[in-house]
Amino acid sequence: MTPGLSPLCVVLVSPRNPLNIGAAARAMSNFGFFDLRLVNAYEVAFRDAKSAVNASKVLEAAREYPTLAEAVADRTLVVGTTAIGNRALEHPLRRLELGGRLIVRKMKTAPVALLFGSEKFGLSNDDMSHCHWMMRIPTRDAHASMNLGQAVALCLYELIRSNSVTEKPVAKALVKVGSEVSAKRPAESEDIERLTTLLLETLAESGYLKNGTGESANLKVRRLMRRMNLNAQDARMWLGILRQIQWKVRH
Amino acid sequence: MTPGLSPLCVVLVSPRNPLNIGAAARAMSNFGFFDLRLVNAYEVAFRDAKSAVNASKVLEAAREYPTLAEAVADRTLVVGTTAIGNRALEHPLRRLELGGRLIVRKMKTAPVALLFGSEKFGLSNDDMSHCHWMMRIPTRDAHASMNLGQAVALCLYELIRSNSVTEKPVAKALVKVGSEVSAKRPAESEDIERLTTLLLETLAESGYLKNGTGESANLKVRRLMRRMNLNAQDARMWLGILRQIQWKVRH
Repeated sequence: MTPGLSPLCVVLVSPRNPLNIGAAARAMSNFGFFDLRLVNAYEVAFRDAKSAVNASKVLEAAREYPTLAEAVADRTLVVGTTAIGNRALEHPLRRLELGGRLIVRKMKTAPVALLFGSEKFGLSNDDMSHCHWMMRIPTRDAHASMNLGQAVALCLYELIRSNSVTEKPVAKALVKVGSEVSAKRPAESEDIERLTTLLLETLAESGYLKNGTGESANLKVRRLMRRMNLNAQDARMWLGILRQIQWKVRH
Repeated sequence: MTPGLSPLCVVLVSPRNPLNIGAAARAMSNFGFFDLRLVNAYEVAFRDAKSAVNASKVLEAAREYPTLAEAVADRTLVVGTTAIGNRALEHPLRRLELGGRLIVRKMKTAPVALLFGSEKFGLSNDDMSHCHWMMRIPTRDAHASMNLGQAVALCLYELIRSNSVTEKPVAKALVKVGSEVSAKRPAESEDIERLTTLLLETLAESGYLKNGTGESANLKVRRLMRRMNLNAQDARMWLGILRQIQWKVRH
């Protein structure tokens, strides 16, 4: 791949709505794609999108091309998107999950273009003739047509999804919560038993446990406490709560 | 699960932009989800969204709730979405891929709510205290915040993605469950909320909650109750226990 060439560009063909252009650019930025290209954009729409308050850097750097051929000239793989389906496609049609995997693999060695048609008509047959294959988002047949900005977001998400299985941001986000370690540790039986006793005493003193029903109620409460699967921190909190309640019940 | 209960509802909390409400509804329809709920929606936004030319049936059937507690009252699992992050979350945070799998599994036996916060601020700490756990879309740290309509689309796509490998409609899988033993059935959010309120009142009356520490303590207790993962039967038992204790504390 030529240095400086983006691994993936998003091409919007004949977009009409500035909000959709803005939404597409925003999703690109969300997922780390920065090469946005427009073909035959409605002039006003593009200007409005660019002048929007929170226009992203992606949008500022977006380039316009007079023809689709020129927009994808530096690309090795060109993939079109479609809502399908009645149209008898001349192209291989792949579901997003599979298509996404193929694109990710290709992107490592060759520049890819991902095409989205206009809000109203999608990609024309002429547009599609520039594509190697087509990709479809698995929407319901009864309501297949997606919002443009959402379609872009979904496709890009699928790309980083397959890619990012190796990252582990979640684990990291959890680490920094200092006291989390102890919180995750399950409460020890000793604490659970202390809690159980405290609860039973309070229940007896408050009249919940009547004489005679004592033993089976004890067991019920004991099991109830165990089913809570308390961690150490929560057990401490419950201990504080029950002590205070017991004090109040007694006074 | 009660017959007629939707397996998944999407809850938009304090949405401000009619276009986003419309986009969320459209994505729901695209992926076969039909239960949209709004909490504290900007009145004008909801009206505008409904009167839009191509407002979907999802939007027409959307219901408004004065509080989040009421919106999720019939749900067993409540999952919030977040753009991150910096905020030290008190909740388990799961990436969309994993979270989606867990939700799909849960949806088969119990009704789930998926929460999205306002465009500007996301979900508040108070909103999050109603959640069992949080889910995050793996956006770039440098530009984490997503468009609301796109975020909804991504989450729902992830649900049908994991599901659609077998192409089995969710609804079908649900039918057979109907008569789950009630003990194993998880408690509904309504019961958990009732328990939380009861416990908070008792704690206030017994002096555990002092003035001034009120709000953060409230949130702590609410989260504590959700971490217990109570089943329906245990929730009833706790309700009885706490009612008796409260009575005693008061007399």
